[in-house]
Amino acid sequence: MSLHQRLIDSIETRKSHVCVGLDSRYDRLPTFATDNNSIAEAILAFNIAIVETTHKLAAAYKSNVAFYAGFGAEGLKGLQLTNEYIKKHYPDIPLLADCKRSEMGESVMMIKQEIFDWLQFDCVMVTPWFGSDTIKDYLDVDGKGVCVYVHDSNPSAPEVQEVKLENGQYLYEYVTELVTTQWNQGDNVFIEAGATYPEAFKKCRKIAGDDLPMLTAGVGIQGGNAEDLVGNFGTNGTRLLVNSSRGIIFAGQASDSEKVYCQKVLEAAQSLRDILWSLSQQ
Amino acid sequence: MSLHQRLIDSIETRKSHVCVGLDSRYDRLPTFATDNNSIAEAILAFNIAIVETTHKLAAAYKSNVAFYAGFGAEGLKGLQLTNEYIKKHYPDIPLLADCKRSEMGESVMMIKQEIFDWLQFDCVMVTPWFGSDTIKDYLDVDGKGVCVYVHDSNPSAPEVQEVKLENGQYLYEYVTELVTTQWNQGDNVFIEAGATYPEAFKKCRKIAGDDLPMLTAGVGIQGGNAEDLVGNFGTNGTRLLVNSSRGIIFAGQASDSEKVYCQKVLEAAQSLRDILWSLSQQ
Repeated sequence: MSLHQRLIDSIETRKSHVCVGLDSRYDRLPTFATDNNSIAEAILAFNIAIVETTHKLAAAYKSNVAFYAGFGAEGLKGLQLTNEYIKKHYPDIPLLADCKRSEMGESVMMIKQEIFDWLQFDCVMVTPWFGSDTIKDYLDVDGKGVCVYVHDSNPSAPEVQEVKLENGQYLYEYVTELVTTQWNQGDNVFIEAGATYPEAFKKCRKIAGDDLPMLTAGVGIQGGNAEDLVGNFGTNGTRLLVNSSRGIIFAGQASDSEKVYCQKVLEAAQSLRDILWSLSQQ
Repeated sequence: MSLHQRLIDSIETRKSHVCVGLDSRYDRLPTFATDNNSIAEAILAFNIAIVETTHKLAAAYKSNVAFYAGFGAEGLKGLQLTNEYIKKHYPDIPLLADCKRSEMGESVMMIKQEIFDWLQFDCVMVTPWFGSDTIKDYLDVDGKGVCVYVHDSNPSAPEVQEVKLENGQYLYEYVTELVTTQWNQGDNVFIEAGATYPEAFKKCRKIAGDDLPMLTAGVGIQGGNAEDLVGNFGTNGTRLLVNSSRGIIFAGQASDSEKVYCQKVLEAAQSLRDILWSLSQQ
């Protein structure tokens, strides 16, 4: 089954667009997870609590690898154990590696060993900067693939992504066209466009077409509006993942008991899911 | 001392432009390193042999982090121990992290912990895709900084980097201008341009000016010509690092004794150094 189909199936099965961002910075974890635990154990305990709370609502999990690697070998061990746990208990939920590793050639073989084999992710996220060399060697693994950042949600994204080309397009439009019409050859490449730039997001959807899964970020804390997504959820309203990280996983207080903390996490995830599902079916 | 000054001092002290690429893939290491060793021990043994052979000729060491992370926790341990060794014995040689991590905001804090603190690199290499957010939070660490890939050496680099802009520039020219005139605020940001595109390389040097350190790759195995660098070594002929990875570190045969292997490594490094130094002083 293609990566696209896996993403769509997961969205449809759960009736949810929510991609839960497991950006589980060790130094921000609540005490129920850190008490009496090593770094790796604390990360695993926290992530298991989040996964057990959200797996019926999480169409995908996206982990920013930097938030683990920042705590060295122990942090990465926590990530590896987390993904192993999810693969064992909820193998149908796609795992996205938000790592922005834009490698090519021999280095891609190494990233595959790291991201697909060791860390058990299903999808590596890359920039388009180095051209198609960055993605082509990932595409021979059944059910796995690549997500390309075509327009991001950060404040300085337009500095490069919105330069105007000779042919009248913005750079991100050109790249979206390149990725969706040329690089995606087997329903294994999709795109990310930030919700904090709603006009750019809509243009990306228009270029990509309604069938292509897309990922968006920046709704909520970063200022993006869920309402701006209306009309851009794609075919059947089920071709869009909406990432939320801190808004869900840090919905509790550091000193909350696990039960209280997880209840707040559940409410945050459920609320976002309900809003998005309702908007997608308009 | 600024990162620029450290790079220039190292080039001038050694009269060498050679940046040795420590792309020490475990599955390619010679038997003298792997025999009776764990993965981390083998990587460390190999890299120590390379460093002890080349430290008088290596203006910098650049490690592609993927080549270590591809072997999981053990691979990264090998990299961490290698950099610890170099920092202890040859602290004046700058260590470049070829990791293409283009993060921003909070994630940059995490990458700093990973790349600067845990792995002890002096410089993180990033794409310009997300704009200045990708570099600004690295610039508060004395002596450390960022290298931005403005035009790479890989075959598909032109797909994005050579799109023509409305103002007549190629994208890589625009980015080179942006990086060198705006992002570099304290001699802590420099650029990489591949030697396999000599015209683009020369344009990058022209835009960057003669004082800015640059890094180039692709001379030798990838087809770049050292002669094309003439006139572009910058002020005093000492503002350019020329990376060579496989051509130096894998100059020996897998079955060679350590002594024989290292002799071949030395000859390869010495030969490249002599050619480049001679070209730089024309």
